[in-house]
Formats: sequence, structure tokens, C-alpha cells
Amino acid sequence: MKFSVILGNLGNTCDRFLSSGYKEQPSKVEMVRQAASIEGVQGIELVGTWDVTPDNAAEVAKMLRDSGLQCVSIIPDHFSQKRWGRGAFTSLDAAVRKQAVQVTKEMMDIAAEMGCDLINLWPGQDGYDYCLQADFLRARDWLIEAVRDCAAHRSDVRIALEYKPKEPRTHSYLAKASDTLLVALETECDTVGVTIDFGHALVAGENVAESAALLIRHEKLFHLHFNDNYRAWDDDMMVGSVHLVEYLELLYWLRKLDYRGWYSMDQYPYREDARAAINESIRWLSALGARLDSHGTDAFDQLIAAGDATNSSRVVREFLGLT
Amino acid sequence: MKFSVILGNLGNTCDRFLSSGYKEQPSKVEMVRQAASIEGVQGIELVGTWDVTPDNAAEVAKMLRDSGLQCVSIIPDHFSQKRWGRGAFTSLDAAVRKQAVQVTKEMMDIAAEMGCDLINLWPGQDGYDYCLQADFLRARDWLIEAVRDCAAHRSDVRIALEYKPKEPRTHSYLAKASDTLLVALETECDTVGVTIDFGHALVAGENVAESAALLIRHEKLFHLHFNDNYRAWDDDMMVGSVHLVEYLELLYWLRKLDYRGWYSMDQYPYREDARAAINESIRWLSALGARLDSHGTDAFDQLIAAGDATNSSRVVREFLGLT
Amino acid sequence: MKFSVILGNLGNTCDRFLSSGYKEQPSKVEMVRQAASIEGVQGIELVGTWDVTPDNAAEVAKMLRDSGLQCVSIIPDHFSQKRWGRGAFTSLDAAVRKQAVQVTKEMMDIAAEMGCDLINLWPGQDGYDYCLQADFLRARDWLIEAVRDCAAHRSDVRIALEYKPKEPRTHSYLAKASDTLLVALETECDTVGVTIDFGHALVAGENVAESAALLIRHEKLFHLHFNDNYRAWDDDMMVGSVHLVEYLELLYWLRKLDYRGWYSMDQYPYREDARAAINESIRWLSALGARLDSHGTDAFDQLIAAGDATNSSRVVREFLGLT
Amino acid sequence: MKFSVILGNLGNTCDRFLSSGYKEQPSKVEMVRQAASIEGVQGIELVGTWDVTPDNAAEVAKMLRDSGLQCVSIIPDHFSQKRWGRGAFTSLDAAVRKQAVQVTKEMMDIAAEMGCDLINLWPGQDGYDYCLQADFLRARDWLIEAVRDCAAHRSDVRIALEYKPKEPRTHSYLAKASDTLLVALETECDTVGVTIDFGHALVAGENVAESAALLIRHEKLFHLHFNDNYRAWDDDMMVGSVHLVEYLELLYWLRKLDYRGWYSMDQYPYREDARAAINESIRWLSALGARLDSHGTDAFDQLIAAGDATNSSRVVREFLGLT
Repeated sequence: MKFSVILGNLGNTCDRFLSSGYKEQPSKVEMVRQAASIEGVQGIELVGTWDVTPDNAAEVAKMLRDSGLQCVSIIPDHFSQKRWGRGAFTSLDAAVRKQAVQVTKEMMDIAAEMGCDLINLWPGQDGYDYCLQADFLRARDWLIEAVRDCAAHRSDVRIALEYKPKEPRTHSYLAKASDTLLVALETECDTVGVTIDFGHALVAGENVAESAALLIRHEKLFHLHFNDNYRAWDDDMMVGSVHLVEYLELLYWLRKLDYRGWYSMDQYPYREDARAAINESIRWLSALGARLDSHGTDAFDQLIAAGDATNSSRVVREFLGLT
Repeated sequence: MKFSVILGNLGNTCDRFLSSGYKEQPSKVEMVRQAASIEGVQGIELVGTWDVTPDNAAEVAKMLRDSGLQCVSIIPDHFSQKRWGRGAFTSLDAAVRKQAVQVTKEMMDIAAEMGCDLINLWPGQDGYDYCLQADFLRARDWLIEAVRDCAAHRSDVRIALEYKPKEPRTHSYLAKASDTLLVALETECDTVGVTIDFGHALVAGENVAESAALLIRHEKLFHLHFNDNYRAWDDDMMVGSVHLVEYLELLYWLRKLDYRGWYSMDQYPYREDARAAINESIRWLSALGARLDSHGTDAFDQLIAAGDATNSSRVVREFLGLT
Repeated sequence: MKFSVILGNLGNTCDRFLSSGYKEQPSKVEMVRQAASIEGVQGIELVGTWDVTPDNAAEVAKMLRDSGLQCVSIIPDHFSQKRWGRGAFTSLDAAVRKQAVQVTKEMMDIAAEMGCDLINLWPGQDGYDYCLQADFLRARDWLIEAVRDCAAHRSDVRIALEYKPKEPRTHSYLAKASDTLLVALETECDTVGVTIDFGHALVAGENVAESAALLIRHEKLFHLHFNDNYRAWDDDMMVGSVHLVEYLELLYWLRKLDYRGWYSMDQYPYREDARAAINESIRWLSALGARLDSHGTDAFDQLIAAGDATNSSRVVREFLGLT
Repeated sequence: MKFSVILGNLGNTCDRFLSSGYKEQPSKVEMVRQAASIEGVQGIELVGTWDVTPDNAAEVAKMLRDSGLQCVSIIPDHFSQKRWGRGAFTSLDAAVRKQAVQVTKEMMDIAAEMGCDLINLWPGQDGYDYCLQADFLRARDWLIEAVRDCAAHRSDVRIALEYKPKEPRTHSYLAKASDTLLVALETECDTVGVTIDFGHALVAGENVAESAALLIRHEKLFHLHFNDNYRAWDDDMMVGSVHLVEYLELLYWLRKLDYRGWYSMDQYPYREDARAAINESIRWLSALGARLDSHGTDAFDQLIAAGDATNSSRVVREFLGLT
């Protein structure tokens, strides 16, 4: 498992009630240093505007190099500025739609310069809030067209569409695994795929392992974000804080279907020491992975072949040493 | 709007705690008579085993004819017998999978004999309950293969796949609109499409109008089931008892995109007079439809073009005379 | 931990789609024998009508004695007969309300004869389904009055009120821990308390450990039912199949606050071998308990005193040997 | 119905992704002017720090007087500063707990000076995020003690505790109506009661009318906040945008039980014109209220006495003119 971290996870985090944030904001250098200090971290994801812009790209690239970290993906900013507030790729304003494409292409260029072959595109503001507010089909056309336009910009940088059912809109256009797979397929571009964020998939009511298997079946699982939540909202908590069997099932299927991408941490440790919180997530995943290695996956192969849930329970118990 | 009713809605309904049911079971003739007595009802959906079998098909067909009602669809029984308890099309037992295909083809033949061109296929037992219990990909292959096999049986009866996120399994294989659209597309059969059950879509976290638009975009919305619920479970309540704006938005889009199928009632009025409960649902829908006719849809076209939610609120208020 | 089992868990289980059930129904003797064969099981809970009636009480008592099992509680039948379909203690029909009290008192007498000091009262049909259907305050008065009446019947049998947010009604009157605690307090009877069903509490959006602590603070936690689910519905699955940290936190608090009641299994293993499924739940709980014993609770005391979630994560990981 | 508005609803609103907010921030005078311009608005709620501080209290009081608006309540700031980030009344830091009490007393004094007799206390940061992080009982003691301390400060200003299941914590200590009623009762202060926020109650899985009836039964419903959401999160949308029958049922019960407090708007119109959004909410409520006046409540009295849901459906339909 190759672990990476979204850089901003190490910084200050705010919400709508405490907009100045729960902590002090460390410098970028300090955040990179902290990421590099977590055992197992080999890569960083950067967010546009927040972490990387055309102006500071060279400097950020150097920071990463100096820390021995790889740029794993860039997440173009389609969400953190007033101009995106009513949508980026699907804004009613044609000028904004154009800017969103432009920004994405810029980030693809920066990625390529950093030796990174992946854009993680999260169209967080593309959706709607109320009934009788949205023209679903027009929006979908705009979205597909914009993604296609970006994909055509260069073929050496892939685009992974990250879905999420809601927040900041009450309804996102890219809401679930299959919705998003359909969009990826409709672009007819090999370089367009999907990111599963573990927590987003939970909120979507998905069993994450099933979504991953479905996407891999279509060769479209490009990237993975890790965190945990209570299923109703994207709480962005530490891995393992609520779910365990679901992670285990996912790790098993990723091995079985030979996923070779990154395991990237995406959390909001509002009130926690950020480094400690991210470290915990990686410790959970790497401990589960190591135990899978030593136990082997044969027992799991037999479980899913035979379908007897009481055996699944027993095997999981024994896997955790709870005998 | 052409209204129909699933016949069993008029009968006794049970749950796991009161398995003998909340009411007395009326005769089939009596249920048909009651359906026919509801203003606007022109059709009936029949459930295999419960309502129709190869043995009684001719008799049931005659009942419908005598009551002036059309057979709108047949729902093959893939859920109400012990043999289906661990799956039908995706049972681990090859013999059961074969029986499920056989039963479906029989129902297609009976449908054709009744002058009905639609099978509503709800694979309720096809899913899983626990993590590390299911082989998602094998199940999906079996499911697609079985649907294709049935579709090949005869081209004059279409197959509409009805999705539902859960119940009776904690996870269904056909869980959401896009999942199911993907399966329909993968069969590569024009006669395979999708049924939206309003309540199932709510439980799936969907905005029903958006799902309908997406399916019509792919020419795959074959059928609609109506009921209401509190979003967490398939409560199968009367239309309008919880949601209203969602129905309005759906009716608007069905007109806009020229849906020509049935509006079929699918409820479980456990403790209510069944005829009265179904009548209420149809009264809500037909009153909303009639008002849409008289108001016209221009105002709604403008709302979704402009995307201003405060206008949407105002137009809906005025539509309801709440000024 | 003293483990018990609700007897019917070992029998056939049905739902609204497969009303004849997923299995064959074993004899009562066979179910008792199976319960007794599970390591650690010392007691049985009986359900009125299903398991025990005035007519067979002596016979059932003998079965339990012969198997070395104690009767832990009786759950009066307020839910499985047509007469209760619209409510028992809160039925609009005064005769039904009276019958519900009568049945409860009978079960209290039978319990006493069996040497059992607890009635587990689950008023499953007491609630409502639709808005503008229920007179909440009148229902609450009737409920409190009926419980008081039963409690006055004899002081040697306690009454534990089991809450559940919904099912079979869309809204239960006893929905959450605090609602039910309030009712228990309003009866002003020391012998009236509350049962927490782990799964019901999850559906109620509660952290079960917090609910338990609150009830113990008021000396009202009389009984516990164990199972697991996906938080949206009472799936009645095996312990540990979804949640783990929540169980651990609960077991910790029960020790800390010196809970001395039973740990009773309440599952619906529709498609599983029932004995195996119940055995699994007990194995999870007893393994967690044994590890708590050997680790001691000091580390947990420090966690909740200091409130640092990254430490909580680390301690739980280490507790599971995931290092 | 006396309508009021939380002042900040008219200002800029942000979330964790767009922390600078979706709009420009108008001046305080402008916000007050806009509130006063909405038909039916007679009062304002002020939030500590954001709207009112000891320094500007006199100035703000004058603004309200000049606009002919009453100060309806003050909401002490227990959530928008870094010092409250890990709790206010239940902070692990005794100095912070003391400050929270101090701030509350200050706001009570300011309220009294403004001729306002109500503090709306929302302890948003008082809760926890992870399992095995919180000492529930100690927190509850601190909370009750702090509320008691504030209540003792002066008897001419009442304290209404506003509950919310989550956000900004994943678990709030004051989560549901009954939890909070229990705390209010435990303070043994007549001047301590409860605020129902319509949207918070939906997220808590409550039927709002039932919660209101329960609180009024205990003479503890002090205040009401209005907004709407999709039941999973506090979306703070316009009234009527999702629910309708629930509002109707609530308005009916408030009349029936003679609620005499304010109907206060509490929304986050992130992307909407704020004045228009608040105006819509009030238009929905006042139109429903006016129609209730003209129809009378007799039909509703009969519905809840008789409990037949099909009649409830019909009466609501007719109430909306959908015949």
C-alpha cells in the first residue's frame, strides 16, 4: 500500500460556526515536514488555490522533492472561491464554466511538471439545493462536455471524478459510484475514471468494497480517499473510528482485483493534532494490510464463495484475535 | 396519467411481528372489484404466486376483462417462497437460478396472453446481508446473464428492473437508479429497462425527478411505482403523506420528457382501509396533475432555467394557493 | 457477563415478503436444547403467545429447568395478534387497552411462578404512522396509566420498557432512551425501568454507551438486548458484524457503572443457522469482555478523562492487537 | 403568530469549503433594515460576538428601536471562537467553563437592558466526536451546574436550551427533545426551558409536533426556530421546501396547546438572496396559519381523536385545495 496525504489535512480546519478555524495555520513547509514524518507516507495530494497555484507551483514542487515526497494528485479548486459558489463546470454563467475548465487544465499542466499523472476532480459546488431548481439534463451535458474538454487537453494526466452525495450542495450531480461511472463512460475517454472517498461512499449508502469492485470491473477505479464517519454525513474522521469490517472487506477486494493506486488520507481533524490523527489512520490501514498479508486471503475467498455469514463473522473475529 | 394498482395492495398485509396480517384477506374477485371502483384506475399489476400462476392465469385474465381493467405488468415471484430466500437470479444454487429464469419466462408468456407487454422484475432476495459474504462480481454476471436469457425468450414483453437499496436483504444488488441503468445497458437488450419505485428511490437517497430524467435520457424508464415514506425505509405509505414538492417536480419532468407509461400504486396500507388508501394516492396525483395542466409548465421551465430557489419556493406556494 | 437468548431467535423468522419464513420451525424443546448448547448461555427470554401462555407455562418452565436455564424475562405479546394491530396500551379501543393490561399482569404472574423478576415490555404497536393521526398527549397518559396499573399488580416483578424509534409503526411512542426514561420517571414506580436494545438505540441515533450511562445515572437500566445493524433499520444482525468500538465503549461503561443485569441476545437470523448466529454474538461479546478483564479499564478511564481522540484510536487499535 | 429573524441569516454565510462565504457581508444597519422590511417581522434574535457584545449593545439596541423591532432573544456565543472549540459549559478546561458562564450572564444582562426576557442557549461545541473520548456523566453534571448558575444570575431572563443531535460535534450532549427536557427538569429552575429548532428536531428523528406537545405538557417549550431540511443534516433551508404536513401538524398543536412564544426564522441561505429566502419562510407559515384560522381546527381535532390516516390524508388534501 502506497500512502499519501492531502496536504490541507495538516492545516487549520474550519466549519460554518467557527469560520476562523479550530487551530493555528502552520506554514506550508511545516505541513510538508509533518506529512513526511509519518511512517509510510510517500506522497502528497495538493489542492488548487489552498496549496498550489501557477505562481507557487515550482516552489511547492521543490518542497515536496526536498522532503522525498511524490505529488500524487492535484485537486483543482472548484469550490473555495465565491465565483464557484453556484457551480463550476455546471454554473449557469458560461464565463464561470469556462474558467473552471481553464483552471483544471492549468492544474493538469502543473501536475505534469511535477511528474504527477492524476487530477482528482471534485465538483463540490456542482449540484443543487432545492426541488424545481435544477435542469438535470443540461447540467449533465455541461459536466460531461467539460470533463471531455479537459481530458482532451493532455493524455498524460488522468482525471479521476470524485463523487459525494451532498455538501456543500444538498444534492451533488456526481453523487454515487454508478452515477459517476456512467459519466466517466459517457466521456468515452480512457483517461477519465473515478475516485472513491470511503466516507462519501458510506454517506451514499454504498458498501465501499462493492463500489470498488464495480469500478475495477470497468477499469475505472483511479484513486482512493480514506476517512471514516457515522454514515449520515462526511465527518472526515480517523480510519477505524467507526467502521472496521468494511475496511477489511475493501482491502481484501483491492488485493483480489489488483488495485495499484494510492491509499490517500482525506480527513478533517478539527480538534485533534493533525499529524497524530493522520498517523492513526495509516496505522489502522497498514496493520490491517499486514495482517491480511500474513493470514493470506484464502479464507476470505472461501467466505465469499460460500456466502455463510456466520462463517464470515467467525473469520473476522479470529482475524482480530477475538477468540 | 394512466393509473394502475398492484392487486395485493388491496389484500391483507403482514410484517415480521404480525405474520398473520393486520386484516382479513378478501377474495381475488373482491380485490379486483375494489380496484375497479377507484376513480381513474384502468389497470392492474399482478404478482406471481400471490395473484397469478400458470394454473389460474386464464381465470384471472377473465376477472380483469370482466372488470374492464388492463393487465399492466406481471411481477414474477422471486421473493415469497423459501427457495428464493437466499437469492433467485443470484442464488448460489444453480438449480434455483434456473428456476428463477424459468418462472420469469412463464410469467412473460402469461403476460403476453393477457395482452400485457411488461414484466416488472424485482429481485428482492438478490443481495447480501453481511460484509465478506458476497462475491459482487460473480453475482452481477449471473444477474445480467439471467436477464439477458429472459429477454431473449420473447421480444414482445419488455423487462423493467425495479431497484431498491435494501429489504429484505440489507444490501440489494440492484440498489439505485444508476446501478440498475448500468445493468440494463450491459444486457444490450432494447427490451430491458428500469422501474422507479418512488419510495425506493427516496430510500436510495435520490431526488426522484432527477433519477427519472436520467433514465429517460437513456430511454430506459419503463415503469413507475408510487407510494411515500420517511426516507429511511420503504414504508409504502399513501402518496402525499410526507412529500409533496418532490411529486410535483417528478410530474413536471415526466411531462417535459414525455413519459407515456403507467402510474402504478404500490402501497402497504397495513392498518388502513386499502381501497381508501389507494384512492387517496390517486387523488393526490390526479389533483396535482390537473393543476399542472391548468397552470401550464412554463413557470417551471423558467424556474429550472434560472435556478433561483426563492422563486421556486414562491411558485410552489402559489401553485398550492398558499398566498 | 450473564448471557441469555430470546427463545424465538432460534426458530423460524419471516418478513412481509416471505411470510411463511426462511426456515422450518423447530419444536420448542429443540430450541431450548440449542440455546442450552451455546457456551455461556444461562438464561432464556420468553415471548408471550409465541413461547408462553397461561396454558403451557408449567410445561415451558419444566423445559427450562430440565435444561438448566433460567427464565430471564417474559416479553408480553403486545404486537403479534390482530387485536393489537392499532395499539395495545394506547389502542383507541378501551377494551383492547384493558386486555393489554390483563395480558401483562398474567405474564407477571407467570414470571413470578418461574422465579423470574422481570417483564420486558415492548409496546411495538403503540405509536402512529401518519401526521395528523395521533393524539400524542392522550396516548402518553394512557401509556403511563397502564404501566402504573401493571406495576401496582405486584412489586416482585419489575417492568423494563423497551424503546424503539419505529417498526412496526413509522413512529413509536417509546422511541428513544430519554423519552422512555421520562415515562419511567413519570410512573413514580421504583419497579419500572428501561431496556436498551443495542440496535434500537443505533436506529434512534444514540451512542449506546451514553444512553446506558444516562439510564444508570437514574438507576433505570434494567435490561439489555444485543444485536447489530446499519443504523437505519433494526436489522437484528449478529453482534460485531457492523460495529465494534461502540460495543467496547458500552462494555467499558457497564463495568464502570456496575451493571449487574443480563446480556440478552435478540436477533433475527433469517437466512443463517440460528444457533451459529447467536453463538457468534456471544463469542464477540465474551471475547471483548475477557480482553477488557485482562487489559483492565485504567487506560479507558484515562481516555475519557483526557478527551484526546487520537489516543482513543491508538488504545482501541492496541486493544485489537493492530499495531 | 409573532415572527422574528436571527439577524445573521441576512448576512454572509460560509461553510468549511468556502470559508470566506458565498456573498458579501452587509452592514448591521442594512441587515436590520432588511429584516424590518419583511412583512410580519416584529422581532430580532441576536448572536453574541457576531451581532452583539458588551461594547456595541447600546448601539444595537438603538438600531432595533429605530426599526421598530423587538429583541426576541440573545444567543450567547458558545461556538464561534477558538476557545470554545472543545466545549464551553463542558470544556475540560475549568477556565473556559467559567468564561462560558460569564459570557452567558453578560448576555442575560444585555438582554434585560434591551427589554428582552429570553436567552437562547445553544451549546453547539458541547459534545464529543469519537467513541471512548467523553465522560458523559461528568459533562452532564457540568452542563446542569452551569445552566443552574446562569439561571440564578437573574430571574427576569429565561434560558431556553436549544438541542441539536450533531454539528459541529458528531454527538451533542443536548441532542434531542427529551434529553434536553430532562436537563431542564434536573436544573429545578422554572426559568429554564427548551427551544425546538424545526430542522434540528427532524435530524433527531422526531416528529416536531410530538416534541412540541411533550414539551408544552411539561410547560417547557420556550421558543421555536424555523427552517427545513432533508432529515439527515441541518440544511437550514426555507420553510416548506421539503416538508409541509409536518408544519401543518405543528401549527395545529401549537394552537391547540396555546403556545404564545415567537416563531423565529433560523436559516442559512448560502446562495440565495437572504431577504427573499426569509420572506418565503414567513409567507409559507403565515399562509398556513391564515388557512388554519379560516378552516378552524375542528376537523383536525376529529382526525387525531379517530386516528384514521386515510381521513387525515383527505383533510390535508382538501386543506391544500387538491381535490
